[in-house]
Amino acid sequence: MKVNGKHYRSIWFDSTSNTVKIIDQRWLPHKFPIVELTTRQNFADAIREMWVRGAPLIGATAAYGMAVQMLNDPSDTSIDETWEILHETRPTAINLRWALNHMRELLKPLPEKSRALVAMQRAGEICDEDVEANRQIGLHGLEIIKQIAATKPPGAPVNILTHCNAGWLATVDWGTATSPIYHANEAEIPVHVWVDETRPRNQGAQLTAWEMDSHGISHQLIVDNAGGHLMQNGEVDLVIVGTDRTSANGDVCNKIGTYLKALAARDNDIPFYVALPSPTIDWSVGDGEKEIPIEERHGDEVTKVWGKLDDGTLASVQICPDNTPAGNPAFDVTPRRLITGLITERGIAEASPEGLAKMFPEFVR
Amino acid sequence: MKVNGKHYRSIWFDSTSNTVKIIDQRWLPHKFPIVELTTRQNFADAIREMWVRGAPLIGATAAYGMAVQMLNDPSDTSIDETWEILHETRPTAINLRWALNHMRELLKPLPEKSRALVAMQRAGEICDEDVEANRQIGLHGLEIIKQIAATKPPGAPVNILTHCNAGWLATVDWGTATSPIYHANEAEIPVHVWVDETRPRNQGAQLTAWEMDSHGISHQLIVDNAGGHLMQNGEVDLVIVGTDRTSANGDVCNKIGTYLKALAARDNDIPFYVALPSPTIDWSVGDGEKEIPIEERHGDEVTKVWGKLDDGTLASVQICPDNTPAGNPAFDVTPRRLITGLITERGIAEASPEGLAKMFPEFVR
Repeated sequence: MKVNGKHYRSIWFDSTSNTVKIIDQRWLPHKFPIVELTTRQNFADAIREMWVRGAPLIGATAAYGMAVQMLNDPSDTSIDETWEILHETRPTAINLRWALNHMRELLKPLPEKSRALVAMQRAGEICDEDVEANRQIGLHGLEIIKQIAATKPPGAPVNILTHCNAGWLATVDWGTATSPIYHANEAEIPVHVWVDETRPRNQGAQLTAWEMDSHGISHQLIVDNAGGHLMQNGEVDLVIVGTDRTSANGDVCNKIGTYLKALAARDNDIPFYVALPSPTIDWSVGDGEKEIPIEERHGDEVTKVWGKLDDGTLASVQICPDNTPAGNPAFDVTPRRLITGLITERGIAEASPEGLAKMFPEFVR
Repeated sequence: MKVNGKHYRSIWFDSTSNTVKIIDQRWLPHKFPIVELTTRQNFADAIREMWVRGAPLIGATAAYGMAVQMLNDPSDTSIDETWEILHETRPTAINLRWALNHMRELLKPLPEKSRALVAMQRAGEICDEDVEANRQIGLHGLEIIKQIAATKPPGAPVNILTHCNAGWLATVDWGTATSPIYHANEAEIPVHVWVDETRPRNQGAQLTAWEMDSHGISHQLIVDNAGGHLMQNGEVDLVIVGTDRTSANGDVCNKIGTYLKALAARDNDIPFYVALPSPTIDWSVGDGEKEIPIEERHGDEVTKVWGKLDDGTLASVQICPDNTPAGNPAFDVTPRRLITGLITERGIAEASPEGLAKMFPEFVR
């Protein structure tokens, strides 16, 4: 989407420099650095250290990582090592495994000398497919927003709450949860977005608020605690979130705190949708609550908060006593019973084994 | 409770200096400044700017504020003006109104020359009554913890989640929600406390974590988003929170985000208790969700986070783009249907009009 009037994707092959470029998202919203990734190690660092984040973008980055490695060493050993090195960077991200498996299966049968070119081309296609999937998600989600808008007085905005960043920065373009919002905006349906700051890493405050601001979409930043109260008071019409991994049963693993918003939406009869491109579905997992491992991240993410000081320098502040022990589960699982529907590129599926199987029959075992 | 081995209350009359002293809690946990309040304006600033916070402590501070003003001007006009000036500082705090009404009713019938002495004495008694009420709350809450401990393997801690700071810093001593924890600790029942950081002002991170650390009570700081996941995974046995105002129906107004934790506790069959001294009950309010006004505070609390830099200086960092609009409702209302019980100084009441009326028949209209 646009930044300062210029259209960007979150990852792209720059044919001038012959390199893959990304936005180093660690510095947003305060800086907007574009960096080249030229080695497998660069890609691993970029994923592990969250220069890039968001399930679809992690997948696309891994695909390009494999492709760039093929330029350096197109051997079978190199493919297998790259699979391992990139996979271990973010074990919860199902798209990462999907992209790595896909590239490995594509490349292994090919002669070594063809691998680099095919891999680069396929990585580019994976990006294009993600963009198209998110565009389709946006069109399906737009219908939900249209229906809600039709129930409101003319000109009254549809109030949408979102958690974390499932925006274009988390995908290649459009975003998942935000794609319906951009499409509503283009269709001139007034929307107002409640942006959960999304502690501990504040991706809502740092990324989603920045995306909304860049597009001139009406929004307000709120603490993660506020959404329930807003729902109790009729100030939220719709919740749309993204997901890092969806089980075949329709359970949704997403950024920590998503489950709490789903509970509040249910308690207040507010529709709660999850937007997801199908590679986010893990067909090998049935019961998401029991089977999806939850990444426990470093306590520093909890005890410290990063941002901009009054003088413009970027720094972290410690919010608690020295040496405070912290717990930091990074994700939670929202059970399907709390989910109104799953907005996929093929349409809106019921969050159930049957709903997903009907929408994606080719994946059912 | 104790700080560096010395016992403190959160407000006290210092007979050496003949002044009222408080802990200026704005600098905790990084500094521990003790300040004198000598004018009515001092008291108003201390309440409004949250040098002191927490419903019971706000009430005690207001009572002392009225008393100190009587030293300066014991007239009827002075009483009425002080009521107005102190009341407008934190309109949501029911204890504030309770204490001011109480002092006004006590003082008005007295000759002016008696007012200062009586007021100072009564303010001290209000403090002592708060300490005793919280001690009783702790003893009643201890029984709940004992019952849970009896269901666990020997030595396994009772895991208690709390939100915001309903600790001794929010009262005169013991705290409300924390009093059962201190009592369990004294009874040598192992407890582990999950401390919600409690954005936007991070009172959990700044105050509750500091209190727990000072007493050597096992605890971990978590983001507000994490509690639901911990409850889904059996890592929380009990939730105890405080309240700023409880309606006669048993609805509980407390720091924003409390409602979300109550929903998660209900969804996972975890007992959810609210600890409150009876002055926190607003007998004039029936339906808390409809009738309790919610304070909307400045957006800066959302867009900025305060803490300690690596070099030890204290500063705020901005976590979002410049000029991001923010919504900042400070409280929410947890409906009584989600509350297991109200731990009062007289015992554990059902969260219902009948439950409260049975416990406090003298207040029923």
